[in-house]
Amino acid sequence: MRNADALALERLTAADPVLVDVKPACEVLEGLSPTTFLHAGPPIAFADMCPPMQGAVYCALLNEGLAKDIGQARRMAADGSITYAPCHSFGAVGPMTGLTTWSMPLWVVEDRATGRRSYANISEGVGVGLRFGEYSPKTLERLAWMREELAPLLSRLLREEGGIELAPLMAQALSMGDELHMRNHAGTALFVKNYAWHIAKLAGEKAEQVLRFIGVGHDQFFLNIAMAANKLAADLADGVPGSAMVTAIARNGVEVGIRISGLPGRWFTAPAPEVEGLYFPGFTRADACRDLGDSAIMEVGGFGGCAMAAAPAIVKFLGASGAETARKTTQDMYAITLGRHPRYQIPALDFAGTPCGIDAARVVETGITPVLNTAIASNQAGAGMVGAGMSTLPAEPFADALRALAEEMGI
Amino acid sequence: MRNADALALERLTAADPVLVDVKPACEVLEGLSPTTFLHAGPPIAFADMCPPMQGAVYCALLNEGLAKDIGQARRMAADGSITYAPCHSFGAVGPMTGLTTWSMPLWVVEDRATGRRSYANISEGVGVGLRFGEYSPKTLERLAWMREELAPLLSRLLREEGGIELAPLMAQALSMGDELHMRNHAGTALFVKNYAWHIAKLAGEKAEQVLRFIGVGHDQFFLNIAMAANKLAADLADGVPGSAMVTAIARNGVEVGIRISGLPGRWFTAPAPEVEGLYFPGFTRADACRDLGDSAIMEVGGFGGCAMAAAPAIVKFLGASGAETARKTTQDMYAITLGRHPRYQIPALDFAGTPCGIDAARVVETGITPVLNTAIASNQAGAGMVGAGMSTLPAEPFADALRALAEEMGI
Repeated sequence: MRNADALALERLTAADPVLVDVKPACEVLEGLSPTTFLHAGPPIAFADMCPPMQGAVYCALLNEGLAKDIGQARRMAADGSITYAPCHSFGAVGPMTGLTTWSMPLWVVEDRATGRRSYANISEGVGVGLRFGEYSPKTLERLAWMREELAPLLSRLLREEGGIELAPLMAQALSMGDELHMRNHAGTALFVKNYAWHIAKLAGEKAEQVLRFIGVGHDQFFLNIAMAANKLAADLADGVPGSAMVTAIARNGVEVGIRISGLPGRWFTAPAPEVEGLYFPGFTRADACRDLGDSAIMEVGGFGGCAMAAAPAIVKFLGASGAETARKTTQDMYAITLGRHPRYQIPALDFAGTPCGIDAARVVETGITPVLNTAIASNQAGAGMVGAGMSTLPAEPFADALRALAEEMGI
Repeated sequence: MRNADALALERLTAADPVLVDVKPACEVLEGLSPTTFLHAGPPIAFADMCPPMQGAVYCALLNEGLAKDIGQARRMAADGSITYAPCHSFGAVGPMTGLTTWSMPLWVVEDRATGRRSYANISEGVGVGLRFGEYSPKTLERLAWMREELAPLLSRLLREEGGIELAPLMAQALSMGDELHMRNHAGTALFVKNYAWHIAKLAGEKAEQVLRFIGVGHDQFFLNIAMAANKLAADLADGVPGSAMVTAIARNGVEVGIRISGLPGRWFTAPAPEVEGLYFPGFTRADACRDLGDSAIMEVGGFGGCAMAAAPAIVKFLGASGAETARKTTQDMYAITLGRHPRYQIPALDFAGTPCGIDAARVVETGITPVLNTAIASNQAGAGMVGAGMSTLPAEPFADALRALAEEMGI
């Protein structure tokens, strides 16, 4: 391994993410303005966004009180009133459309040693919602409840707990069949199990509603927390001159973009892949949006497709043939990663560390590209999730990044 | 497969266990008297019991108010005041010493189709307690709290829920790395996740204490529930003339006993095995009680050692060499079981059903005996758990049962 990559990997794996607070975006995202709207994936203009992301912009305009109705929202979205930027540019990540704006509460994850922080919004639960571009009164009411009731409670919980160490929790979830991208059953259940008593103590009469929101049919609740933890690890590893280690993979539904440690802030993009997977009843490939969301930060940290061998039960959900697909995918990822994570282990592989630190050079050498476990969003605003599957990235962005790195190094 | 065994297996796997209530033993165990004390394993006289079980008898005498101090408890335990009987004789099961008496609250599990019921006491939590033969004021206070506060709340919860279907919950736990004998992390977490809201609703100010008791560091909470479910399946399968399918495996710390379907109520015993395993720091084999507890009912139903391939993370806890031990153990159990459970699947084995319906004939033919995942109790009363490991049963009881069955059938 080259020294630069070794250093980047060391920083990635040394991250010690602690969930410390929940705060409105405006209080924690430096440089955010009330009219700066953050979205998943690499940069994109409003006119080019996929319909779910455009719908999410309308929803955010209504949610922020910037537009009083959908007509005004449609006008404002396109007339230059709003500045659009990737979540990634503000130290944040968001699943699906990833829309993140001024008043929205964010999970705050802090690295114990350095104090560096990363952020992600809070899961809205199953079904449609802002993240799928829906803007019904029900969705807006839920966002208001999350902002006004849930977020202050979670903030108090986390401050009274003195933060929640996420590495042991994520390690335990891996030992319980999560790969932490499309399966967060265990992470979510452990969160409720460990802290339900404290929520009951703090929330009093509101505990029922809060515990029902988190606990009932909301298995991906933990994903957003894990995403912030992995964004933190990736950002800590970013900016090592000469390193081709991947520090971001993100999709906006039109393009997929990657970033590498040696070229911080630069996106290398290609058309977002179509996802191979299993469609829910009544939906087909024709209903699918191209690959969407910042949740591929999980694979950047060694979870999701990388850790699939830990989660054999997921294969049916993703439309894969059998448990062998889970093992094979993890084995493939070992071929393109720089190392094995010292804290995140896969029991079924005799506690081998997860493959982590995707190396753009090895991707180009082997022709093996990262596999992302992912939800499939509808290509219509507000229609929600139409399936789940595995997304195989194109090789071009990795080759482009390598060429740019060589140029930067004067090679 | 012989017709009798096929019928027994069909009844075992057709069980549809629903957790319907929590009731004091005196209200649900037919024929129980205030001075009938139930214990784990096959029948045993007080004088022959291992020290933890004798300690548990003292604890129960104090807990029931039959003895006013330990001196009186010691006298009463041995002077004929108390009648001892296996839990199994009353449709119940109990982990470790399994002491179950008049006022103790029991989980009530009902078969949906037949209305048949089975019972198990409620887990006291980690550390010492009644089940390890401890009788401190702290243990007695906890038993009183469980009886007076926890049990009525759980009863109300279950009645308002209309019962909780256990088969889907156990199937999900298997897909989350539990084998449901020595690993109930997922079963317990799912219980809290699914019902914390309802506990908060019912318990009001007491919710904090209840959720702390169930949720914090109490990963085996679900075991007792799963034991009652498997006792139910075993009892439904019991009494098929001619069948050599095992319907009970239980240890009292001195002897292990098995029962087979074709000879209901008859125990075939041998000295309880010493458990191969990993001792907690400060303990050695010299501190260990022989194999103890009714929890081997889990293996009778296809869990525990049978389902170990679902729980590779458990190998370290049990002192086994690697994940291969988990796969190998399940493979061995396929060789001595009558079939694969249609509802309980192992994702890592491409969703193969768990090996279930241990066949005494196949045990004798192959020389492979059931492997039990188990806790290792101290051989001292009140000292608690000293390790965990795998217990390989002796072959003699299976051979004895087969001979007796042949005799019964006039062969």
